[in-house]
Amino acid sequence: MNIISKFRCISCGREYNIKDMIFRCACGDLLEVIHDFSKLKRKPGEWKRLFEENMDKVAFLRYKDLILPSLPDDKVITLDEGDTPLYKANNRLGKFFGIKRLYFKHEGMNPTLSFKDRGMVAGVSWANYFGVKDVACASTGDTSAAMAAYAAYSEKIRGIVLLPKGKISVEQLSQPISFGTTTLGLETDFDGCMQIVKELTAKHPIYLLNSMNPIRIEGQKAIGIEMIHQLDWEVPDWIVVPVGNAGNISAIGKGIREMYELGIISKKPRLAGVQSSSACPLYNSYTKGWSDLEPVKAEKTVASAIQIGNPVSFRKAVRELRYFNGVVEKADEKEIMDCKAFVERNGIPLCPNSAVAAAGALKLRNKNIIKEGESVVIVLTAHSTKFSHAVINYHTDSTNKYANLPIYIKPTLSEVEKTLNLKQ
Amino acid sequence: MNIISKFRCISCGREYNIKDMIFRCACGDLLEVIHDFSKLKRKPGEWKRLFEENMDKVAFLRYKDLILPSLPDDKVITLDEGDTPLYKANNRLGKFFGIKRLYFKHEGMNPTLSFKDRGMVAGVSWANYFGVKDVACASTGDTSAAMAAYAAYSEKIRGIVLLPKGKISVEQLSQPISFGTTTLGLETDFDGCMQIVKELTAKHPIYLLNSMNPIRIEGQKAIGIEMIHQLDWEVPDWIVVPVGNAGNISAIGKGIREMYELGIISKKPRLAGVQSSSACPLYNSYTKGWSDLEPVKAEKTVASAIQIGNPVSFRKAVRELRYFNGVVEKADEKEIMDCKAFVERNGIPLCPNSAVAAAGALKLRNKNIIKEGESVVIVLTAHSTKFSHAVINYHTDSTNKYANLPIYIKPTLSEVEKTLNLKQ
Repeated sequence: MNIISKFRCISCGREYNIKDMIFRCACGDLLEVIHDFSKLKRKPGEWKRLFEENMDKVAFLRYKDLILPSLPDDKVITLDEGDTPLYKANNRLGKFFGIKRLYFKHEGMNPTLSFKDRGMVAGVSWANYFGVKDVACASTGDTSAAMAAYAAYSEKIRGIVLLPKGKISVEQLSQPISFGTTTLGLETDFDGCMQIVKELTAKHPIYLLNSMNPIRIEGQKAIGIEMIHQLDWEVPDWIVVPVGNAGNISAIGKGIREMYELGIISKKPRLAGVQSSSACPLYNSYTKGWSDLEPVKAEKTVASAIQIGNPVSFRKAVRELRYFNGVVEKADEKEIMDCKAFVERNGIPLCPNSAVAAAGALKLRNKNIIKEGESVVIVLTAHSTKFSHAVINYHTDSTNKYANLPIYIKPTLSEVEKTLNLKQ
Repeated sequence: MNIISKFRCISCGREYNIKDMIFRCACGDLLEVIHDFSKLKRKPGEWKRLFEENMDKVAFLRYKDLILPSLPDDKVITLDEGDTPLYKANNRLGKFFGIKRLYFKHEGMNPTLSFKDRGMVAGVSWANYFGVKDVACASTGDTSAAMAAYAAYSEKIRGIVLLPKGKISVEQLSQPISFGTTTLGLETDFDGCMQIVKELTAKHPIYLLNSMNPIRIEGQKAIGIEMIHQLDWEVPDWIVVPVGNAGNISAIGKGIREMYELGIISKKPRLAGVQSSSACPLYNSYTKGWSDLEPVKAEKTVASAIQIGNPVSFRKAVRELRYFNGVVEKADEKEIMDCKAFVERNGIPLCPNSAVAAAGALKLRNKNIIKEGESVVIVLTAHSTKFSHAVINYHTDSTNKYANLPIYIKPTLSEVEKTLNLKQ
């Protein structure tokens, strides 16, 4: 495979060799990956045929020419991520949302139970291509779990995770530790860990895998590409994505934009980003006509993975949202958890962060921004089982709208019959 | 689709119409499903071609003619279960086990994170075919989670779960509750719940979905069929399965036996069942030349899902094990958890119950029962994230062989460098 990709600064436009191990432009802003797809000399129909012919390959390899064409196949470290379910809403969910053609793209059905695996198959494979021995990130949650798993499976690469000591739960610790990652608890907060991991990776040949790394964004493009392929290339009218650091909506947007520019699809979906009301700087910008980012203090929210007041990928997200005639919505704690509970009682187990997107879709439909008859895909980012305490807290409080409390009764058949309203 | 299946008692041989809503023979023993595949008039090559042509369908439908041919397609309620990863062991794992061609079939990568989804797509779809309004089970774990999800998605069927009050954790509660199941906590133990759910389903048109239900076994056959398909019909020398109630090894055996009898494969794998030493009546029977079941008191074990002293499907399991020249092994707590830890540090997150199978495979290789050069598939039954406390308990005790403790240090670059043995 020839190198047909490069880094470009999203701010000053300066370009860098894709094989430079850098994570930021000299000017300080983010880099993005630019591919010269024209070198592949492929017509739209040929792209689709290529994907069809590669259905037996793992998603990352199937779509690799569109995701990260400059990565050699033999450098790929995969855990069989992707090919996640695209659930068609049942009638009850369709009515609840007021959307007839409604789908859930469930990225929680990945190996480490979140969409981060999509970015890490790209990121850790790229590290493997570089031949580095170490990868590192500062993360308390899904990012460290995903990085740790891919590094572990590679058996060549050591994972290093920096965590704020005493500020994370045992559940957050369990994944990176079990995957054998070197887990450093620092006596500081998350920003302190982030600062040190940046210094560490700038000074040593350690590959940084936090979300500022543009290679991870390329991997996450697969979510949108695969979704539209699953819809048999029928582009939905809307794609709704939860937004924290804004990397995922940037990735999904970039992938679909590239498909559109290559003529693989001939229609643009509209993008909707949804934030928790507790941390909604992108929403604030949207309501002011895409004004510059004003970082906020992120308040506590059930959607803890997107409790971020200063999103790294803000500018990338705004660009994609504008390109796709997008909107931004926000949802409060009650809206998030009620919507989560209603979706789950239809058999789809989603995390609180994913529920932010679902709650936003409902609001956008109620405001008639999503119009009657339009088709909608809601992107779910992680599995509910990573957050089982949120479930219990909701369902054991009978004042919650969709609370489903256990019923405690005497152990007799007649008591059970009575409770179930059965004829005795 | 014509009805080409019937129930037959595994003990007295009495036959029943497959459309009878029964769960046991009049003689009290288990029923199994018998299919008259000759009615499908299909040659071995035609079966394989059928599966290839249906690669775009969900696994249950792709293999349905072999799994449950009498079920009409339009009655199927699926959550996109199956097509789970078949991980090739990396070199480090290969060396650890002393097995070059080693695979892990990861059934924890199903929608509710366990292999029970394979049985429930069959069981709940069959309930849907019957047109019943309610399904029920007594279960504290994966079974209730899976039943609840499929019933919820169907939106026609109510799930009813009977649980022993005060004896289950919030995590075990969280899945059935979130899926909207009617969850009854009875002031009794598990056996008491089981007794009442049997009476309830005998008296009312409520479909019983505990593991004595033979339709669930048919669904679980897909695990073995799909695994061998993923190996491009190259049958492995060994398939290693954890054993509690003995339903899963019976199912995997039945499916492969049927494939063999139909000529779809021309080699029999050997089967190995592995039990926790704390609950090993099948192992005891094996060591006495397959003597009759002597129920034991199951002691506490980290492999809580298979802490079963009186396995329902004992006789089915023995039949398949004998057919496949099988063996039974056992593993103690330390062997289970050390093996779990070693597999996980290679990026594969498995539950403690799955680790029983892995530990057993290691012992069988060390005893040279699994021979040098033989190929082995270990079946993993659930995802580690359902059991994150087991991970933390192991890794925070430095006396454990593969413990990976977090390292707490001061928040400076030089401290991090020193800890990582990097040049400062």
